[in-house]
Amino acid sequence: MGSDRGAGTVVAGALEAASDTLTPVLFGPTGLETRGLEHVVAEDVIGMDEKPAEAVRAKPDSSLVAACRAVAAGDADAVVSAGNTGALLAASLLEIRRLPGVHRPAIAVPIPARDGSSVMLDSGANADARPEHLLQFAYMGAIFAEEILGLQDPTVRLLSIGEEPEKGNQLALEAHALLAESDLNFAGNVESRELLAKAADVVVTDGFTGNVALKALEGTIRTLLEALREEITATALGKVGGLLIRQAARRLAHRLEPDTYGGAYLLGLRAIAVVAHGNSSSRAVTSAIRLAARGVEHGVVDRLAKRLPERQQANV
Amino acid sequence: MGSDRGAGTVVAGALEAASDTLTPVLFGPTGLETRGLEHVVAEDVIGMDEKPAEAVRAKPDSSLVAACRAVAAGDADAVVSAGNTGALLAASLLEIRRLPGVHRPAIAVPIPARDGSSVMLDSGANADARPEHLLQFAYMGAIFAEEILGLQDPTVRLLSIGEEPEKGNQLALEAHALLAESDLNFAGNVESRELLAKAADVVVTDGFTGNVALKALEGTIRTLLEALREEITATALGKVGGLLIRQAARRLAHRLEPDTYGGAYLLGLRAIAVVAHGNSSSRAVTSAIRLAARGVEHGVVDRLAKRLPERQQANV
Repeated sequence: MGSDRGAGTVVAGALEAASDTLTPVLFGPTGLETRGLEHVVAEDVIGMDEKPAEAVRAKPDSSLVAACRAVAAGDADAVVSAGNTGALLAASLLEIRRLPGVHRPAIAVPIPARDGSSVMLDSGANADARPEHLLQFAYMGAIFAEEILGLQDPTVRLLSIGEEPEKGNQLALEAHALLAESDLNFAGNVESRELLAKAADVVVTDGFTGNVALKALEGTIRTLLEALREEITATALGKVGGLLIRQAARRLAHRLEPDTYGGAYLLGLRAIAVVAHGNSSSRAVTSAIRLAARGVEHGVVDRLAKRLPERQQANV
Repeated sequence: MGSDRGAGTVVAGALEAASDTLTPVLFGPTGLETRGLEHVVAEDVIGMDEKPAEAVRAKPDSSLVAACRAVAAGDADAVVSAGNTGALLAASLLEIRRLPGVHRPAIAVPIPARDGSSVMLDSGANADARPEHLLQFAYMGAIFAEEILGLQDPTVRLLSIGEEPEKGNQLALEAHALLAESDLNFAGNVESRELLAKAADVVVTDGFTGNVALKALEGTIRTLLEALREEITATALGKVGGLLIRQAARRLAHRLEPDTYGGAYLLGLRAIAVVAHGNSSSRAVTSAIRLAARGVEHGVVDRLAKRLPERQQANV
């Protein structure tokens, strides 16, 4: 419940994701049409505009909180939501809880960059962060890149406003120093202009900056493709040309589409939580559910639990 | 001196900008070919990779510092540089100095958005900022929008990670409160996904976030157009289509091109300083010089000096 396109789209996506090895369980009010999928009744709904912490406290029987509780109880392996991101974060902190040693969970967003996938975190879970949080995000991102993107010894770079170590705000300067001392494959600062080309396997930043960078990418792609379409269809010759490049434009759009991944992980919890875009298509919901399943199959949480303290201790 | 494409490109741009009402004066070493334009000898050069504050202190006879000194002495009305941005900031703070009451100068970048120009500041002068700095940036941006973009009662929005007042990091939350109390035409928070469409007449942010957002826009435009070209030329049909849409693509590229403005203002100084992109074409240099001249003609500095304290007092 709570997504922009309504429950029907989510149900359709879940139905498509269902397989011999993947069993979607839908949380929603009495009367929800689940098309044969398992249905757990949760009468309340948290809306997109509700304040996360308050809503989660006030609505323990919302679909979102109930789904997180089911994961915490072991009745499900992962939770996926296309609803209020802040509420998912609050509900999963409350019900699923953090892994021992994790300061703060981070949103890890896979970026379908031109030269291969990378992951950026934190993309919005924590608006304010301290340098040691960024170091931990880097470790979580490296494990994500290994397990989910299949990359060996992934490179880690810090998002800043210049490649030189002395470029950046106070947070970036201090995080740079911590990353440089770590045993990560740290390749220095990177600028946001490289994000869509491919900045690094793992791009580390605070949640405010990461969210601004991510939305700048999304908005620029959308606005640019719309503007190109307008220019092309402004002339008869352009229209013919537009038909001829349609396949090429579709291939490109497909490559860049967030639907390919469908969602982002909340990393640092005791189970997998995947946040899908609020206006996810059913195809994006399917991808998000599969992404969650992949995380379960690869034992991402166990590996985080095991390797995070190890890796961090090495730096103490 | 000190730009990526060498002094020849800058000289060519200056030559093109020269007119009955605009007299470029070139600062550079003995032997610089100025093609008949006035030449003030300054033997040193500050490179792109030099640390700004140190370089400015160590090289008082660099073209950049000498040009700022000439403006301070009244021998020129404005300074334009395609060299090291940090060094231009440091040199202009040292030589031209801040206007009374200005906490920190800001880089004001015009964004050629789809639905009309807007200006974003700070785009990189100050990596760290306090809420009261952002309020002042908003006033400076509003004056820029009125005088340079020709907009009446410009709307001001704060770059954040959600439109609701309670979305953002600590800095954004506090700046939001100050802006909401001010006499500016404040229209609330805006997300970076709106930047290229048109977020507002004036978009206010700290220099770190602004720089990240700006470079994300630039990089995404570049990467996306390159990728589209690759996809189009991958098939014979696509190639023909590519020829037919070439005019449309050029119109779009022209609309989005930073060369249209050529540069950004350093606002808050006692004279106009314009920072041009390091790899500016001669056309971009011409635009940057004309932008500086427009600032002089519109008396931007006097208006800032007069209206900034007035406006700010109204909020005390």
